[in-house]
Amino acid sequence: MSDTFVVVGGDAAGMSAASKAKRDDPDLEVVVFEKGEWVSYGACGLPYYVKGEIQSLEELVSVTPEQFREERDIDLRTGHEVVAIDPDDRTVTAESEDGTVTQSYDSLLLATGAAATEPPVEGTDLKGVYTLGSMSDGKELREYVARAREDETFQQPDRGPACQYLEDCTGPVAVVGGGYVGIEMTEALAANGFEVHLFQRGERLLPAFGEATSEAVADHLREQDVRVYLGSEVEALEGEDAVETVVAADERVDVEMALLGTGVRPRTALAEDAGIELGPTGAIATDPYRETSADDVYAAGDCAEATHAVTGEPAYVPLALTANRHGRAVGQTVAGRPTTGGAVAGTAAIKAFDVEAARTGILDHEEAREAGFDPVTETIDANSRAGYYPEDGTVTVTLTADRDTGRVLGASLVSEYGEGAVHRSHAVVAALYEGAAVEDLENYDLAYAPPFNTTWDPVLVAAKVLSGELR
Amino acid sequence: MSDTFVVVGGDAAGMSAASKAKRDDPDLEVVVFEKGEWVSYGACGLPYYVKGEIQSLEELVSVTPEQFREERDIDLRTGHEVVAIDPDDRTVTAESEDGTVTQSYDSLLLATGAAATEPPVEGTDLKGVYTLGSMSDGKELREYVARAREDETFQQPDRGPACQYLEDCTGPVAVVGGGYVGIEMTEALAANGFEVHLFQRGERLLPAFGEATSEAVADHLREQDVRVYLGSEVEALEGEDAVETVVAADERVDVEMALLGTGVRPRTALAEDAGIELGPTGAIATDPYRETSADDVYAAGDCAEATHAVTGEPAYVPLALTANRHGRAVGQTVAGRPTTGGAVAGTAAIKAFDVEAARTGILDHEEAREAGFDPVTETIDANSRAGYYPEDGTVTVTLTADRDTGRVLGASLVSEYGEGAVHRSHAVVAALYEGAAVEDLENYDLAYAPPFNTTWDPVLVAAKVLSGELR
Repeated sequence: MSDTFVVVGGDAAGMSAASKAKRDDPDLEVVVFEKGEWVSYGACGLPYYVKGEIQSLEELVSVTPEQFREERDIDLRTGHEVVAIDPDDRTVTAESEDGTVTQSYDSLLLATGAAATEPPVEGTDLKGVYTLGSMSDGKELREYVARAREDETFQQPDRGPACQYLEDCTGPVAVVGGGYVGIEMTEALAANGFEVHLFQRGERLLPAFGEATSEAVADHLREQDVRVYLGSEVEALEGEDAVETVVAADERVDVEMALLGTGVRPRTALAEDAGIELGPTGAIATDPYRETSADDVYAAGDCAEATHAVTGEPAYVPLALTANRHGRAVGQTVAGRPTTGGAVAGTAAIKAFDVEAARTGILDHEEAREAGFDPVTETIDANSRAGYYPEDGTVTVTLTADRDTGRVLGASLVSEYGEGAVHRSHAVVAALYEGAAVEDLENYDLAYAPPFNTTWDPVLVAAKVLSGELR
Repeated sequence: MSDTFVVVGGDAAGMSAASKAKRDDPDLEVVVFEKGEWVSYGACGLPYYVKGEIQSLEELVSVTPEQFREERDIDLRTGHEVVAIDPDDRTVTAESEDGTVTQSYDSLLLATGAAATEPPVEGTDLKGVYTLGSMSDGKELREYVARAREDETFQQPDRGPACQYLEDCTGPVAVVGGGYVGIEMTEALAANGFEVHLFQRGERLLPAFGEATSEAVADHLREQDVRVYLGSEVEALEGEDAVETVVAADERVDVEMALLGTGVRPRTALAEDAGIELGPTGAIATDPYRETSADDVYAAGDCAEATHAVTGEPAYVPLALTANRHGRAVGQTVAGRPTTGGAVAGTAAIKAFDVEAARTGILDHEEAREAGFDPVTETIDANSRAGYYPEDGTVTVTLTADRDTGRVLGASLVSEYGEGAVHRSHAVVAALYEGAAVEDLENYDLAYAPPFNTTWDPVLVAAKVLSGELR
């Protein structure tokens, strides 16, 4: 009899694992339980759907449930919520409209993802308060925008940044949290004419991106007439039935809607109930092959820890590429070829209106010191193209290295959209993975031609300056 | 008495060395002999000047002779041609309008650059036959374009690709050679309404970029109504006084002008006359610190060899970044801190109309086998942005690795301009320098967000596919 591989959760990690396992070992029986109706969807695209640049949720789905079932021969059971795992009996129990089923497994993958967190304040249950964690959240938000615009089937962003249309502005609305979701949703809402008030608890937006990038993004949002409140923790959402006022430390702002983008937490309850260990980050602990403390039980994606490429320590970085990659690795492993899927570097990218930014590795000096490094950082501005080239712009690069070894620890880049901050970060990611020193990075023969950089790409300029500092 | 550092040649390598040496050791006497009047100019920008996107040659100059003399305290002698070196006496002899001078040195840098080659055919001395090797070449070509346009001070490209205006086309003109200069000048001329006939001896444009990129560029040039002749070696240029006809193997084309872009050769005569050794590539041989066979005589830039990052063997790659970097390294070395400046990977980038491309490392299988590798290549097409993102395009990636070790050997990428083929190549360059295997590259945590790539960047997709092939 053939082995059975059971997957809990049908998004990036789960479906990557299921697909890869079945492809590599067609004899394997692959069963996926997904509690909702959507699988394998691009949650990263939700802000663009709400904005109106994407017209249907279906466009975010890379492979449909029918394709998984019919073309990939995967036993995909949507509408099935797994409520218990028994690692001793090697079974999972799932509930659906049709009742309860118990399914035995030889290998099991927990790919339960993460849930949007809500700030611990009064009023988050008022009407008009949203999060953006799921396809249905996206649908509700788009419907909200459509209602506010009085245009139910709008096909594109309405009016550009609110600044241009303040006299007939929709809104005002609040976005709580200045991370990826908060900023992407700020753009989505402002582009539809909403007056957006963005509240960030700490002193910087995108704090993981370092000071220079955070400030560039904040400046740019303000240029777009977004009201940015830094160091402004939201203390309550007030209203009768629906939200009417956001109360922060020094502000009271009347709003018609509030979007909470205050991060995510790993969904670990199922694992915990089964006695599976969590790691120091609070996500499910795994070995390099993503195996948990229970034999033949794996965890991957936004519910699980990974290993940091720079520190070698457990890290929780719930992003799409890792979910895909680790899911795929588990698929290969259970199909007979053990695969780690590699480490994570905390790399992330964001577009905010006409600015793009990326970050990777360790930038924060305290974090670097805790990992045993003696961090040194330089920030430089460099031309994005040859100075004489007509479309010249600027890229700001922040580069951090260890003083003793010169090892590259992390970087953040920001530029106008289209000037390449994000793709230019790739060289630094590679350097991190290879344990390269700044002097190595400085000597990379990166592609040059006048339309793409100055003779020294901005990353090389940063390496050159930091390398000088390290001597 | 302070030491004297003499530099022969005042472009990228020479002025980088002079500037760095003087900055690091202000007591050093730094003398630069440059036979022309221009120093430190961006020859890479000349096609854009001819095209009309840059308005004056001065814009291509990053530092003026006056700045070198006054701000950087460098004894820069333009209009001085060095005619002899005596490594035993440690002197150079230079001629100028004012006569002959002999200058002694403690350290000497040969930065004599490269000269445009001409194909060994009849008629290259006819009027209307141009090369693009120097600022004065650029000036003449722009004057030619201005005359043909009957607009002496044109401020921008005139009419877009010739295809749109064939009925009132200027030209026809020939471009001989399908490398960087040939293709960039094809764009410059076609954008001004010339009917351009591009002759390439071999079967592929940009042969170093591999088949997929070469074909993509050729297809795109044809879309722009450039007449591309492949496998068409030019046998003669014919004309009474000025060029009138290009004669190739199977073609006779009447033209009003011909631009020769058939490569460059290192200027080594001065070194050879002084008994300094050339290497296997025909350029000046150097050690890792760019020192030649003569003590304290260095060579850097387009006249000298470098070491290839993948093979460890001597390589001749006359491009701007290496010249800058090795010049700077020599400057550091003579100022007391020996610096290699690193290897080269043969990385290059080009924009051709609305297409961009980059290549790095070793793609050619014969070349790879000669270096002791067993090459395997895969070419993939991948989305440049999330499939659902509105501005979606395609990036074609060709990736070559060694079968036994999995080591990444080289890559070529091509995309629409703006879709990131060039900047995405940076990750592969880094992988080459670090001796990374395809499986390592596959696991890099490259920055992802929907406006910049699919969850797997095209480079990761290529690595994933090639990695599968290697098992």
